[in-house]
Amino acid sequence: MSNVNEEVGRILGSYSQNINNEIESTLSSISPNDLQEASIYLTKAGGKMLRPALTVLVSEAVGGNIESSIKVAVAIELIHTFSLIHDDIMDKDDMRRGKPSVHKVWGEPVAILAGDTLFSKAYESIINSKDEIDSPNPEECLERVNKTLSVVADACVKICEGQAQDMGFEGNFDVKEEEYLDMIFKKTGALIAAATKSGAIMGGGDEEITSAMYEYGRLIGLAFQIQDDYLDLVSDENSIGKPVGSDIAEGKMTIIVVNALSKANDEDKNKLLKILKIGNESGNCSKEHIDEALSIFEKYGSIQYAYNVALKKIQDAKKLLEILPDSESKYALSLIADFVLERQS
Amino acid sequence: MSNVNEEVGRILGSYSQNINNEIESTLSSISPNDLQEASIYLTKAGGKMLRPALTVLVSEAVGGNIESSIKVAVAIELIHTFSLIHDDIMDKDDMRRGKPSVHKVWGEPVAILAGDTLFSKAYESIINSKDEIDSPNPEECLERVNKTLSVVADACVKICEGQAQDMGFEGNFDVKEEEYLDMIFKKTGALIAAATKSGAIMGGGDEEITSAMYEYGRLIGLAFQIQDDYLDLVSDENSIGKPVGSDIAEGKMTIIVVNALSKANDEDKNKLLKILKIGNESGNCSKEHIDEALSIFEKYGSIQYAYNVALKKIQDAKKLLEILPDSESKYALSLIADFVLERQS
Repeated sequence: MSNVNEEVGRILGSYSQNINNEIESTLSSISPNDLQEASIYLTKAGGKMLRPALTVLVSEAVGGNIESSIKVAVAIELIHTFSLIHDDIMDKDDMRRGKPSVHKVWGEPVAILAGDTLFSKAYESIINSKDEIDSPNPEECLERVNKTLSVVADACVKICEGQAQDMGFEGNFDVKEEEYLDMIFKKTGALIAAATKSGAIMGGGDEEITSAMYEYGRLIGLAFQIQDDYLDLVSDENSIGKPVGSDIAEGKMTIIVVNALSKANDEDKNKLLKILKIGNESGNCSKEHIDEALSIFEKYGSIQYAYNVALKKIQDAKKLLEILPDSESKYALSLIADFVLERQS
Repeated sequence: MSNVNEEVGRILGSYSQNINNEIESTLSSISPNDLQEASIYLTKAGGKMLRPALTVLVSEAVGGNIESSIKVAVAIELIHTFSLIHDDIMDKDDMRRGKPSVHKVWGEPVAILAGDTLFSKAYESIINSKDEIDSPNPEECLERVNKTLSVVADACVKICEGQAQDMGFEGNFDVKEEEYLDMIFKKTGALIAAATKSGAIMGGGDEEITSAMYEYGRLIGLAFQIQDDYLDLVSDENSIGKPVGSDIAEGKMTIIVVNALSKANDEDKNKLLKILKIGNESGNCSKEHIDEALSIFEKYGSIQYAYNVALKKIQDAKKLLEILPDSESKYALSLIADFVLERQS
């Protein structure tokens, strides 16, 4: 494990106790019991807590205290969890964070409701944050909460739209890079951008800083998803917890596939399309097919291309941090940007 | 059709064009297309639009204009629609408002997403309402929006909890009246109470009026659900669009069942429990069983009991309206209370 991964692990760990306590207190009033348990379950399944930590770190980096932003940070994590629960139902994914997914344990009806409950609780948490803001001006507090709600509601619409786009891509191999990037921005980037922007708002950052922090979040969100595509091919099974090339095996659209299809000659393109169709229909194509796809990706430099796209986004994201005054939190935000590429899982 | 039904039909009709236009403009930006269509579908299926009309009427009754409350009214209707879409998936109801339900047309994944999208759009609509409020004081506008968001988020949590309670009641015939009323308050009453309370807030009503309007909404919401239980037994098939006694046929818990079970002697109680279990397991018990249950309900006065409970709530609700100055809107709110009992479907 690199130093970056260790350092980021330590930083995320230093916030996780506060965040977990706040999540627990937010969800403790839900009744009946099985709805409460189903709602809490995934929040205790050992997620990285990257999104809420980003909110708190940005808030601190612009001069806010942790109380001003923690309820918003928790809201972001609850929305992330809500989307995971519903996505797992839609995608029929039976495992999540190494445990059976919510609908496998409680059934689909309770899982749908648990997602809806987390979604509602997230908004409640943001609204309640107005009494925690470190500002003497009540109008200013209301203004910050209102702006944050607006950012978060926008991200929620985008998450739904991104998931619909992603489902629409299934079995459709005529996706342009621009469309692919738009999908992953909505599905993954928008909530991370909302996490960083709302941290800036709640901490009292001005318009310029707030916009820069949105862009920082958007870029690391995009890089995060692209790096997921990349790790699926270059990591090892133990690190990512699934077989190498599993995206190809399932015929999934990734930036690597999009790039290879756009560059390949007709022969290679047809070979790759055939493999993807088998993967899409069977959910599991053969090792030979995966190797064949890999050699096509290598021939056209598509794996390196994906890495370069992610790297450029991380470099741009780090430049945006220059707007912040020097602080430990600013340093942590820079490390988290590096971590997006350094992580092995 | 009674005069009340005609008059209320006319009142609801007079707002429906404005509300429908606002819904359409709120949902027109959703992409991709199939997500937009699935999200809009039920809003165009001819619902009564009772909830949004209540919001606008209360807002007007406390002195607000329609612009101040219409985006909140629309949000309430979108939340109602979201809950119908998800409930239909959970309850495996394939028809809604005389049309195939959303998951029958687009499949469950898109239906889950359409519900989530409406939910997100509802919050966006409330947030956007701050620029429409008829008040010169920007802090006051923010305050109203913030209070409304708080009321609505609370109702959303309750809707989820109520649905979970309702699912928990399935096949459980040991439900107390208090538990039953708590369930229907959460599942139906909370959103109607949020509709009326948020109308009062957005229109600029003071604390006392706002609380009274919440209580008015809560009471007519409870009466509405109890009257549904009642109409299932005393209405005719043509009016309610389903066979008389279909709740018994499905073994559903209603206030009438709860009341009869609490009063019946052991013999009648066992007969009724047997019928309910058959209904619950088969989803459709025989005409003879329904008639037998009906005669038990009549023997213990449980049908009349339900009507009396609903009537008392409507009388109390109407008394609460006395706090309002006389106006056409106040008169309409009184008529809507009567309509809850007069309606045949």
